Amino acid sequence: MMTEHLKLISSVRCFEGEQRRYEHLSETLNCTMQFSVYLPPQALKGESVATVLWLSGLTCTDENFSAKSGAQRVAAQLGLALLIPDTSPRGDQVADDDAYDFGKGAGFYVNATESPWVDHYQMYDYITKELIELAHVQLPLNGQLSISGHSMGGHGALIMALRESNRFASVSAFAPIAHPSGCPWGVKAFSGYLGDNRETWREYDAVELLRAGKKCPPLLVDQGSDDNFLAEQLNFTLLKEAVAEHGVLAELRLQKGYDHSYYFIASFIEAHLQFHSRYLKR
Amino acid sequence: MMTEHLKLISSVRCFEGEQRRYEHLSETLNCTMQFSVYLPPQALKGESVATVLWLSGLTCTDENFSAKSGAQRVAAQLGLALLIPDTSPRGDQVADDDAYDFGKGAGFYVNATESPWVDHYQMYDYITKELIELAHVQLPLNGQLSISGHSMGGHGALIMALRESNRFASVSAFAPIAHPSGCPWGVKAFSGYLGDNRETWREYDAVELLRAGKKCPPLLVDQGSDDNFLAEQLNFTLLKEAVAEHGVLAELRLQKGYDHSYYFIASFIEAHLQFHSRYLKR
Repeated sequence: MMTEHLKLISSVRCFEGEQRRYEHLSETLNCTMQFSVYLPPQALKGESVATVLWLSGLTCTDENFSAKSGAQRVAAQLGLALLIPDTSPRGDQVADDDAYDFGKGAGFYVNATESPWVDHYQMYDYITKELIELAHVQLPLNGQLSISGHSMGGHGALIMALRESNRFASVSAFAPIAHPSGCPWGVKAFSGYLGDNRETWREYDAVELLRAGKKCPPLLVDQGSDDNFLAEQLNFTLLKEAVAEHGVLAELRLQKGYDHSYYFIASFIEAHLQFHSRYLKR
Repeated sequence: MMTEHLKLISSVRCFEGEQRRYEHLSETLNCTMQFSVYLPPQALKGESVATVLWLSGLTCTDENFSAKSGAQRVAAQLGLALLIPDTSPRGDQVADDDAYDFGKGAGFYVNATESPWVDHYQMYDYITKELIELAHVQLPLNGQLSISGHSMGGHGALIMALRESNRFASVSAFAPIAHPSGCPWGVKAFSGYLGDNRETWREYDAVELLRAGKKCPPLLVDQGSDDNFLAEQLNFTLLKEAVAEHGVLAELRLQKGYDHSYYFIASFIEAHLQFHSRYLKR
């Protein structure tokens, strides 16, 4: 299909692999999207490699994690590809909002049902259906897949892993919005994208999905103790309780002194990729 | 002195150390400056540590290297501080130019003699005299010092190491502007800051300083083979020849496929910091 054509925008050598950026016309989102991918040296030598899908947080594009996490060094060592989508639909025709936490850059990984968002904000399906398939058809990926993310992207990683537990070997998150139905960021976004019927919110809420007994792949979570958003937005304790009550194979760590920034992610990304590698290579 | 007061703007935990940003009123530059410093965990436990001074390239502030290089991971392992100045004087009262390669963000690490630049563009003295002293008085640094940088900052690192060879245990550079008197970036900047008398340019030109027989600390240079600026601006071959002719203890490496970006720096920063650590800890 024409719509599934990937256009290479840039390719830069990085740790003997390649940091690439692609553009494509997304059928699901009804707009042109960009995403980044890191291919480790093994993939450039003809090997098909396992993939860690990374979901970014509010205000990010696919470029923040690419530039700031230092993940490529570890991915090169472990022979993992990194697949890094944008955080919302893009383009002049896409509805937006002036706020940093709603509209562009803040898709919250849901399929919107409310006007005007319903026309483009279908990030859940875009990532779980279109992008993963597209990447596997056109790049040297072997089908093995884990998922990780930060903040809003940590929320995205958790809900995708809980709803598609057979697709992901493991899941991890940095400072995830664990219970969006119960925090200001989530209530604002879900009210706008999904409407006022809170029943529809449950399938996009990690704590609710755990409470409903959804299976979860092996889980690693890091949360900074000095994160400005910890008390009001992230619900780390509720996530810990829900994970414990439902017998998930999980480690949730409070990291003393760390904040919500990419300096926190950079400090622990190696541990996360090593965690995923153990499950991807079984 | 009041002017030597350091104001802490931010401090973020990173690899068990701290990534800090300071502001101070610079006597040398006659304006308020910001700089970044990474203190490794050893320094937070009361140890005084050796320092690698990092000079950034055109358009950068102190934040680019901090966010994108991944250097803190290695600095934490090796117990090194990273001292990261801005690339020019700053503020509304400072003369500027619309070009990306002249004026603010493009100080070229010289002491300007021409109007209007002479009033503030004294980056050579700011770094070699004021900033290094200030940092050593107010931070847990042990006096041992090496220097590195990228592009315009690689030029800065080379000329400072050649002119102050007793102060620096070692020097390294990524894609340095090795012979500014002989490339468009350098000729434009030196004409503007230093005037048309090319005799005055020699003391800010690494190839000329080597040819004049200046002593050089042990040197490591990495240069990407796919760097867009290699042919016109960087004079890697001239640097290699000058180093060989004057018996410098040096390794200059052409890295196949790498470009001029921070993905290149991130790929080799570990090797550079390990190189410096060997000389700093003798």
